[in-house]
Amino acid sequence: MESLRLIKAGGALIEDPEACSALLDSFAAIQGPKVLVHGGGRSATAFAARLGVPVKMVEGRRITDSAMLEVVTMVYGGLVNKNLVASLQARGVNAVGFTGADLGLILCDRRPAGEVDYGFVGDVRKVDVSLLSLLMDKGAVPVIAPLSHDGKGSMLNVNADTIAAEVAEALAACYRVSLEYRFEKRGVLAADGSLISEIDSASFQALKSSGTVSGGMLPKIKNALDALGRGVSEVYIGETLIH
Amino acid sequence: MESLRLIKAGGALIEDPEACSALLDSFAAIQGPKVLVHGGGRSATAFAARLGVPVKMVEGRRITDSAMLEVVTMVYGGLVNKNLVASLQARGVNAVGFTGADLGLILCDRRPAGEVDYGFVGDVRKVDVSLLSLLMDKGAVPVIAPLSHDGKGSMLNVNADTIAAEVAEALAACYRVSLEYRFEKRGVLAADGSLISEIDSASFQALKSSGTVSGGMLPKIKNALDALGRGVSEVYIGETLIH
Repeated sequence: MESLRLIKAGGALIEDPEACSALLDSFAAIQGPKVLVHGGGRSATAFAARLGVPVKMVEGRRITDSAMLEVVTMVYGGLVNKNLVASLQARGVNAVGFTGADLGLILCDRRPAGEVDYGFVGDVRKVDVSLLSLLMDKGAVPVIAPLSHDGKGSMLNVNADTIAAEVAEALAACYRVSLEYRFEKRGVLAADGSLISEIDSASFQALKSSGTVSGGMLPKIKNALDALGRGVSEVYIGETLIH
Repeated sequence: MESLRLIKAGGALIEDPEACSALLDSFAAIQGPKVLVHGGGRSATAFAARLGVPVKMVEGRRITDSAMLEVVTMVYGGLVNKNLVASLQARGVNAVGFTGADLGLILCDRRPAGEVDYGFVGDVRKVDVSLLSLLMDKGAVPVIAPLSHDGKGSMLNVNADTIAAEVAEALAACYRVSLEYRFEKRGVLAADGSLISEIDSASFQALKSSGTVSGGMLPKIKNALDALGRGVSEVYIGETLIH
């Protein structure tokens, strides 16, 4: 099976011009099939402010009302995605930008309102990478924005880590997939700031119980372990190998 | 040769919800290969106003400085394009949104500053529809925004009529292409408001000399005649057949 690297690049890496340029240089240098999944939350927040669209967050997660859906569709699907595509084309990479709506790549259900109504936020129902694989066979490199659709005509805001994991799992049917969460930190850090180089299910439980790992890192590691259970060959969070 | 219909839908058709819905219903009903090219100028102007980005026009053409390039990249490439894709997916059409940067579809040169500096505006240098055709063979339906790139990392604003004509000409190598400019008017109108049903090169000269046709309609008809000279089988402007 051919190897494929799927890189999810967090907001700070994409939105700082120097960090983004370095990321794209190293991404362009990867040989063989590859996919880039990006965020863009800081830009969305900045444009929302300029447009007078209130930013509402609950426990670090964005509430996406219809005005915010317009903002993220513009910023993730347009500004961030197309500038990454143009920047990769300039580096000789035949990049092609997608959301989950394009080619029916990712079908989502709008998350039902519970204690919190997250608005136009999607949970993944189905991923179809058949035409994506066809393009990759011809050397095309997908650049995927954290957006999808509900199959009924509405776009939806989707967590970029989740999109990365779902697409990685679907591609694992035809490739040996390495899923790599790249962000502004070195990886999963211990209490003393040192890098934890490897984590497995057992050590994750210990890190969680001791409180060494907390906050947004918990779902990231959980996603990683889930992806490994669903055919992905290896997962990195920064430089930390999850296995 | 298989027939293909390439519909270019003008701004008013795309930006009025009822007109857009009717357009998408009829587009979805087209059998066989098809392509949608869209505008979005009114939305870009509206978002520019909300963002405090000054809109500068010279002879009806938009000056695209770096702030306006951000706006059109967001609005054309994100908001308008992705909502069209989601709306078509809901109608059972396997739509996929592109700019000219994606898959290296359209390579442009930034227009040199002459008497007027149009800013980040592109003139088409090269069109490559090889991967686009591959996707269409599998039933995918391209939805193309009026944007492209310069091959050096910058997106560029490109006239949507021009993109439609250039892509139609490139596709004429493998399809019998009908290029159709659809907009809010019935077609090319005579001085008394009646529809001119057919125009050829000779009658175009007469219409131009007499002043019956003027303004933005002149380049539209000229583009149409050029496309016919470059392999496109038929061109419609509204309901007017150009041949």
